[in-house]
Order: sequence, then structure tokens, then C-alpha cells
Amino acid sequence: MIHQEELRVPTPGRGTQEVTADVEGIVARAGLQTGTCNAFVLHTSASLVVTENADPTVRKDLESWLARAVPDGDRLFRHTAEGPDDMPAHVRSALLETSVTIPVTDGRLALGTWQGLYLYEHRTAPHGRRIVVTVVGA
Amino acid sequence: MIHQEELRVPTPGRGTQEVTADVEGIVARAGLQTGTCNAFVLHTSASLVVTENADPTVRKDLESWLARAVPDGDRLFRHTAEGPDDMPAHVRSALLETSVTIPVTDGRLALGTWQGLYLYEHRTAPHGRRIVVTVVGA
Amino acid sequence: MIHQEELRVPTPGRGTQEVTADVEGIVARAGLQTGTCNAFVLHTSASLVVTENADPTVRKDLESWLARAVPDGDRLFRHTAEGPDDMPAHVRSALLETSVTIPVTDGRLALGTWQGLYLYEHRTAPHGRRIVVTVVGA
Repeated sequence: MIHQEELRVPTPGRGTQEVTADVEGIVARAGLQTGTCNAFVLHTSASLVVTENADPTVRKDLESWLARAVPDGDRLFRHTAEGPDDMPAHVRSALLETSVTIPVTDGRLALGTWQGLYLYEHRTAPHGRRIVVTVVGA
Repeated sequence: MIHQEELRVPTPGRGTQEVTADVEGIVARAGLQTGTCNAFVLHTSASLVVTENADPTVRKDLESWLARAVPDGDRLFRHTAEGPDDMPAHVRSALLETSVTIPVTDGRLALGTWQGLYLYEHRTAPHGRRIVVTVVGA
Repeated sequence: MIHQEELRVPTPGRGTQEVTADVEGIVARAGLQTGTCNAFVLHTSASLVVTENADPTVRKDLESWLARAVPDGDRLFRHTAEGPDDMPAHVRSALLETSVTIPVTDGRLALGTWQGLYLYEHRTAPHGRRIVVTVVGA
């Protein structure tokens, strides 16, 4: 059995937004018990990341680390026409995930207790992002 | 055909432990010839990584690089209540993999000659880690 | 339905080569409408990456960032027998992707407008690289 839906996520600019419940809803509609759920973001300046869902400071600290490791406006970059945050967004996209596959058990995402799935917007301006979710199983 | 099992891996603290043979055993029990095998670690301070299985110095050097790039006790971090290695573990988890999908060919993991699958414990203390393995195919 | 093929990609040395059309060809031969397509590179010193396909400067800038973050000949590394670019190749391989799963919609890869799939050769010398492509769906 295969079930596929597209999820649309408006973002307010750089940072993370939890999409666990939205993807869980798609898994429920798929109506299967055991399998895998793939989420794929259709953009090269936004990512998916599975990270801690308890203390939001974890996601702020991840942003601080990325902002230091891949600084906006770095003079290393030549692809600058779309702004100082554009090329850093592509590097972040290469370092984090475009595609995440999560197991499905008993008809639900088999995430750990402290795991959430987040869309990570890397651009500073608001964007409309699209995620394709594909559930495979029986 | 779908087959799913959970693998439990006790870790002695930070570093890598090969789980290739354990996952290969699950693929064998799945009893299918061609497909994919997804491994998903249920934690946000441990990772999966496919890396060289010949010279263990490769994994030590990877640890050296990560320890320098994401130093324990970095004053950048605010999420420090669980210790100086906690937030670095979450950053490492975002940089490496939570989920790895490996092809299955002729009833076995289709890994390259020098590839092994490793659980990477990022915390300095011993932990009990869980990996969900899902095999899909025919 | 399952369809699996191996793709062989000769590389001229370090840098990216687009493999989107090759993988798309395999998806077409799979003859299914909806599902997922997994690409898995059988090496620990080459990666897969989904990144922008419009301006090649994006991939040059990504290379510049990686060359600075994981410098060849870094004295941090002990695994140096195979040359100054060998251990950096393994670190890059851990940071980027060994395995990428892309949705299939209407019999084609469901990539975003600006997304391409690239093989990233991390060694400076030419290599013959192998990618296993597995398409699952209905």
C-alpha cells in the first residue's frame, strides 16, 4: 500500500516549525499498520530535521551554531545576488536533511519520546514551503 | 512484504559501534530478496552513520573533527542543564543521520566493500539506544 | 512493485556531477506511478546531495565552504596514508548524504523546480563510483 500527500507550510522566516502532527495525520489517512513514512522538502534553502521536542532552547542553540558555522554575508561566497542569507541557506540545506524516512508502527510514526520532525526555514524572509509525504507499508 | 524489528544497543559513552551484522540479521529474517532497509535511531543525541569499516582511525578522526567543530561546553549554548556534552550531541545529531535507508539485493544489505553502519553515541555517559529497522521489498 | 538498478558514474575528481536524468531513467523503467526512489552511493568518500540546479556557482560555493570547514592536510587527522584529501573525504561523506530517498509522483521523481540530485566526488583523483537505485511503489 502506498499513500502520498503534499503538505504546505508557510514560514515566518528563519527557524524551525514542528510538522510532526501534520505528518502523523497523513500517516493516519494512509490507513496502514507497519511501514515507512518519507518526508521530502521540495526546496534547496529549507530542510527537515528530527530533533528534541521538549526544550525549545535546543532549536535556538542549533540555530546559533549554524549561524556561526555558516555565517550570512560570508565573503567566501560568490552566489550572492539573492541576498546574504541565500548561499548560507544552501549550505545548511546540504548539512541537514532534504529527505527523512521515519518508521510506521501500529499505524503511527515510530518516533522516540523526545523526537519531533521540524521544517527548518533557512531564509530570513517568509516563504511557502512544500513537503511531499509518502507512506509505504501494509 | 514488510518486516520490522527493534534493535537495542547499549553504548559505553561517546563513539561509534558497528551495527551492520545486527541489521543484516534482521534483513535475513525478513526473507525478501530485493528492496530497502531503513534504520532509524529513536534519540536526538545519537546518530547513524555509514562510514569506512577497515581502518578504525577513520572513526577516531571523524570524532576529532566533530569535537573541534562542535566543542563540549561551548559558551554559545544556552541548553546546558544536562551537561556540557548535551547540546553538542544535538548538533552532531542534526549534522549526521537519524535515518539511513540501505538497498537490499539478493537478500542482503547492498553495502559497498568498505562501508559499515555505525551507531554514533554522542553523549559521554553510557546509554541504552534503540534503533527501529524496517525492511520493505519482495 | 520493486525495481533496482546500479548506476556507474566515472568522476574526474573532486566536485559534483548531476545524476538526476540517469535516476529519472531508472524510475521510468520501473514503470510505477507512485512511490519512493532511493539512491545509495557504495562509497565512504563520495556523497549524494540534493541542491540547486540553476546557478552552478551554488555548487562551487558549497565546495568552498567544505574545503574551509574540512581542510585537506589538516594536522588533526591520523588517517593520512592515502593522501591529504582522504580523511576530509570521509568527514564530508558523514556530513552530506550516503542515501537519499525521493518521492515518485505520476511516474517521475517529484523534485522541486530548482532541485537536482548530484554525486559529490570528495577525492581529488578520478574515481569510478557506483550508486544503487531502488524504486518502490505501485
